[in-house]
Amino acid sequence: MRPSKRNNDQLRTVSIERNYTMHAEGSVLISCGNTKVLCNASIEEKVPAWLRGKGQGWVTAEYGMLPRSTNSRMGREASRGKQGGRTLEIQRLIARSLRAVVDLKALGERIITVDCDVIQADGGTRTASITGAYVAMCDAVNTLLKAGKIKNNPIHGTVAAVSVGIYKNEPVLDLDYPEDSNAETDMNVVMNDGGHFIEVQGTAEGHAFRRDELNSLLDLAQKGINELIEAQNNALAE
Amino acid sequence: MRPSKRNNDQLRTVSIERNYTMHAEGSVLISCGNTKVLCNASIEEKVPAWLRGKGQGWVTAEYGMLPRSTNSRMGREASRGKQGGRTLEIQRLIARSLRAVVDLKALGERIITVDCDVIQADGGTRTASITGAYVAMCDAVNTLLKAGKIKNNPIHGTVAAVSVGIYKNEPVLDLDYPEDSNAETDMNVVMNDGGHFIEVQGTAEGHAFRRDELNSLLDLAQKGINELIEAQNNALAE
Amino acid sequence: MRPSKRNNDQLRTVSIERNYTMHAEGSVLISCGNTKVLCNASIEEKVPAWLRGKGQGWVTAEYGMLPRSTNSRMGREASRGKQGGRTLEIQRLIARSLRAVVDLKALGERIITVDCDVIQADGGTRTASITGAYVAMCDAVNTLLKAGKIKNNPIHGTVAAVSVGIYKNEPVLDLDYPEDSNAETDMNVVMNDGGHFIEVQGTAEGHAFRRDELNSLLDLAQKGINELIEAQNNALAE
Amino acid sequence: MRPSKRNNDQLRTVSIERNYTMHAEGSVLISCGNTKVLCNASIEEKVPAWLRGKGQGWVTAEYGMLPRSTNSRMGREASRGKQGGRTLEIQRLIARSLRAVVDLKALGERIITVDCDVIQADGGTRTASITGAYVAMCDAVNTLLKAGKIKNNPIHGTVAAVSVGIYKNEPVLDLDYPEDSNAETDMNVVMNDGGHFIEVQGTAEGHAFRRDELNSLLDLAQKGINELIEAQNNALAE
Amino acid sequence: MRPSKRNNDQLRTVSIERNYTMHAEGSVLISCGNTKVLCNASIEEKVPAWLRGKGQGWVTAEYGMLPRSTNSRMGREASRGKQGGRTLEIQRLIARSLRAVVDLKALGERIITVDCDVIQADGGTRTASITGAYVAMCDAVNTLLKAGKIKNNPIHGTVAAVSVGIYKNEPVLDLDYPEDSNAETDMNVVMNDGGHFIEVQGTAEGHAFRRDELNSLLDLAQKGINELIEAQNNALAE
Amino acid sequence: MRPSKRNNDQLRTVSIERNYTMHAEGSVLISCGNTKVLCNASIEEKVPAWLRGKGQGWVTAEYGMLPRSTNSRMGREASRGKQGGRTLEIQRLIARSLRAVVDLKALGERIITVDCDVIQADGGTRTASITGAYVAMCDAVNTLLKAGKIKNNPIHGTVAAVSVGIYKNEPVLDLDYPEDSNAETDMNVVMNDGGHFIEVQGTAEGHAFRRDELNSLLDLAQKGINELIEAQNNALAE
Repeated sequence: MRPSKRNNDQLRTVSIERNYTMHAEGSVLISCGNTKVLCNASIEEKVPAWLRGKGQGWVTAEYGMLPRSTNSRMGREASRGKQGGRTLEIQRLIARSLRAVVDLKALGERIITVDCDVIQADGGTRTASITGAYVAMCDAVNTLLKAGKIKNNPIHGTVAAVSVGIYKNEPVLDLDYPEDSNAETDMNVVMNDGGHFIEVQGTAEGHAFRRDELNSLLDLAQKGINELIEAQNNALAE
Repeated sequence: MRPSKRNNDQLRTVSIERNYTMHAEGSVLISCGNTKVLCNASIEEKVPAWLRGKGQGWVTAEYGMLPRSTNSRMGREASRGKQGGRTLEIQRLIARSLRAVVDLKALGERIITVDCDVIQADGGTRTASITGAYVAMCDAVNTLLKAGKIKNNPIHGTVAAVSVGIYKNEPVLDLDYPEDSNAETDMNVVMNDGGHFIEVQGTAEGHAFRRDELNSLLDLAQKGINELIEAQNNALAE
Repeated sequence: MRPSKRNNDQLRTVSIERNYTMHAEGSVLISCGNTKVLCNASIEEKVPAWLRGKGQGWVTAEYGMLPRSTNSRMGREASRGKQGGRTLEIQRLIARSLRAVVDLKALGERIITVDCDVIQADGGTRTASITGAYVAMCDAVNTLLKAGKIKNNPIHGTVAAVSVGIYKNEPVLDLDYPEDSNAETDMNVVMNDGGHFIEVQGTAEGHAFRRDELNSLLDLAQKGINELIEAQNNALAE
Repeated sequence: MRPSKRNNDQLRTVSIERNYTMHAEGSVLISCGNTKVLCNASIEEKVPAWLRGKGQGWVTAEYGMLPRSTNSRMGREASRGKQGGRTLEIQRLIARSLRAVVDLKALGERIITVDCDVIQADGGTRTASITGAYVAMCDAVNTLLKAGKIKNNPIHGTVAAVSVGIYKNEPVLDLDYPEDSNAETDMNVVMNDGGHFIEVQGTAEGHAFRRDELNSLLDLAQKGINELIEAQNNALAE
Repeated sequence: MRPSKRNNDQLRTVSIERNYTMHAEGSVLISCGNTKVLCNASIEEKVPAWLRGKGQGWVTAEYGMLPRSTNSRMGREASRGKQGGRTLEIQRLIARSLRAVVDLKALGERIITVDCDVIQADGGTRTASITGAYVAMCDAVNTLLKAGKIKNNPIHGTVAAVSVGIYKNEPVLDLDYPEDSNAETDMNVVMNDGGHFIEVQGTAEGHAFRRDELNSLLDLAQKGINELIEAQNNALAE
Repeated sequence: MRPSKRNNDQLRTVSIERNYTMHAEGSVLISCGNTKVLCNASIEEKVPAWLRGKGQGWVTAEYGMLPRSTNSRMGREASRGKQGGRTLEIQRLIARSLRAVVDLKALGERIITVDCDVIQADGGTRTASITGAYVAMCDAVNTLLKAGKIKNNPIHGTVAAVSVGIYKNEPVLDLDYPEDSNAETDMNVVMNDGGHFIEVQGTAEGHAFRRDELNSLLDLAQKGINELIEAQNNALAE
């Protein structure tokens, strides 16, 4: 039995709230159960130096946790003077996932930066960030289309992500913190709306996992991501 | 006429939402018009090295702006590797203001850290932070009282803050961003419930200000802070 | 009775020594009692990137304390790898105060940087820095006028600063360290030669201060600043 | 046809040279084709602060590339003042992989740090690091066993790693740099001698990858890792 | 002919002013011509962690240049966030030179830190720092002797330093900046009162130097250091 | 008797292996006994900003020790976030020594960077770095000559370096670690093939050294450097 009483293949309640803040070109608060991440997409009409003159844009991401988004207070990275390895790893993952569905030539010479700031953490913050960041990026791109700055939508697919894992010997979908901190295996899966993989990152926390366990986890992830993509589409249709 | 059509002595709508996140001992979202700051108060059962063995506690604060809380995206301080001068100045001000109403001996050997993170900025983020942080600190101290860790409330007064300034030659209360960025004089005032001053920080942005202008500004601040303290009391009474 | 036997409205002996070092365009050693600050004004024929092409200049300041300017040795900021919050706060204050009396358009596309380095500290280092930096800036601007690089003096007023505070329940002028470290209220006031305010920064260290106390402090500050401006003028007339 | 003329399921020539340097408790130069990584395992008789008194040890890793291990010179991380995100991500992966086969209680209160420094890079440096680090760690643990500091070998399995990917639409094993930089999908797989997974990290570089492609890649990885484990065992048997 | 009209074997005018600032245990302003360095010696009753329990003390030094001690303004190291290589090299040299004449056991478990801050630079700042720091250290040790904290003077010799070089093909003593910036060879020599060498650091700036040139430079250095030691003794005798 | 049984004027066995890695324009592994340093010379077709438009190139160097090149593990500088004073001092010395034999005008507007990374340390790493870096730089310059990018060889001399010292009261050549850590005086000498000095850096570790000791040390150094230059020439002739 999962601590949350959910079925093994059951997502937490997802809500995706658009236009959450007023300044960003795209602003989404995504809640996956008690995990809440604010995803703000910003458009800047410039490119990094190494892309200058190449006729293409860039999509990047930054990730942060508010110091008290977690059960005990974490030191503020700005105050410690550097971002930790986990933070850098996560923001690189978010950015790669978003770029997998964007035609950077069609975007033109501009940068989309999606800031994913965790307001409240209860497991799965990096996958919630990806799922929310996609919606924020869509809204930001829409401002470009409406303003006539680009003619064709450079976003050519949908991307969402979920965590799966083996908890008390059973494969489960969408781990919350009590599960995550006791899981034997933890896997983050990023997929597109074609049902194909963009990222698969599985880690044995306790014992190493078998090929059949891996397969069960991927089945669960695929089911969950289908539902998340539906939630994204519903939010964007509002 | 003010851009927001407010009277010169009129505050923006204030809302103070307690228990905004689930982990912090005190968690408050304060909104002053479009300015929204999340104030999380954390209690840690330790003291900084320089206070060890002195039989007293400490109250401190940290301040940050989400990169896209502002009209154009600001670089993330964690990524730039240091907190800017403005950030350090503000968090020092918040902490001093809170300590002005706390008996650190009565708090005992523990630290209260209030994290003030600006979700959306429209002027007056530092004063909103102080007003909200006070409520979060009260909630955090209440957990200590309820748990029997302290017997007497170490908080011996109420503290709130507001900005005032001279906009188009007229003294106005509670500047929003369009006013703030064009003000000739900008003043942040922190007061307690006895009507006395904890901090007064006035800066001439355009021409230097006269003694009578200073007096008008302090009158406005006092009126505004009275209303803010009422809002704090109402929120704490819920 | 004040530790220094001064009257409540009495400044410490001020001396302003120009041409203190040989390389800077303006170089002033200001002594306010035992507080000694070396203020070197440098002119550079360039502007920061964000001012390029705007046809105006900039005035900035940096502040530092020699490690043993104080009673016990402080760590060297260069060695610790960053400037502390207090340092950043002070150098921002000095720079704002100087800019309040300079027409940046008339200065032309160049930067004046005033380095204020505390040789010996006995309270009031930030206000002494402002008072001394003004004189150093005047000397630096004079080199521009003499060289014919600018035709009209961009400095359109005089700026000086002093601290006031409540010590043993009495308002006093120009606190030295023994007073400063025991003051109930500490206020730094920056004014121009028109008797108007450029900055007012008051902090309750002990109990909160009343409106009438604030008024007494401002009266003292005004008296002190008049005398400091006279000392600046005398020094510049030599 | 692969640039190196290898079959799709063919590893590069592997060599594992023990006792490569004279100071480290375990010192291994691993070569996978032209990729050469020096893996030095150090034992320190202390534990990190957060493990003190828990009766267990720790295994960690650091990773670096010599500035000219690559085709064009990379800036030195020590000189830039921080380790990049890729570096932190890799050293976290190496350390997790090693810990998956070590009983930290049986290790006792000491740290094993494996430094993986890339002398020459031609793709697959992180997986070569893991494979080589395992052998260095074994040698380091042997010094403990020989010295009688521990009685039972805390290493309870073998760990090795390899990269697989889709190059020109075909799944291939052990990508070199010309393949890696053009691969559509790149996957790093870490397994133990039981044929189970410790880490699976797959990234779509070009198009997203299908479930059957994932399966082919895992088959290749399993074959390659079996051969690498044989190479490790042969090296350790010398 | 030297720019300063000095003879080739002539020092600049040296002055050593003790008790220059009021807080440090030893405080010396040394002037060698236009080069002025403030040397403050501080005593702290603690030892660095790596010396704890070894029954000995330590002597260290820090060096800094005020930003406008030089002809054109240098960036402030505290603001750039790190000390440059030249700074670190110089402060290591000063500290080694001082330790060469101190019995660290006899000093007891305390640290002497000598801060050498260049007020005005005209060549030879590192050698002036050593010569001045020695006198400041003597004064600091005298406070220990007077306070009865140590019984025997741990300083067992005198140390002074001077620069020599080859300027326009001729060996000269005590280079000022115009000479230093055009010298073909620049050498810093540190000696004790026994006429023996503590440090010799010679660098060919233009052509490599011959053995006979080296010998002439050492002769000049010895003459200069004898005179500097006399100046130190005279200052200490006042 | 020296720990290594060498005669006082005997170098350790030197080997200079060219083309050690495959990417760098010049790549040399130099071994001086058990000290092994990898010297990679890189050419970049750009100049630092301060040399732009001056029609000349630059030669620079970086130095690092692998964390376990030493007897006990040293912290990784990249991880600590800065290069230590010793590292900066050494890389400045290597670069100055190389520049002493290069005509920077003849090099043209390009940078040669020589990375000296210590694989295994047993004393004398900085002098081995200089001797090896010279050979790597020659190979890098040869790629420019072969490619017709420059017509005349900008290297106009040979440079090599060795350490000498006073060990158990006797002057000895080429100290290994057991000697170095017990030497009373340690001197690093850099010379060219004309027998002239480029750098002389002598430090008294125990007692101060006499003029006649200095002379003996220089004699030893000259003998050693002659042999090292022969080894360099032999390596380059292969």
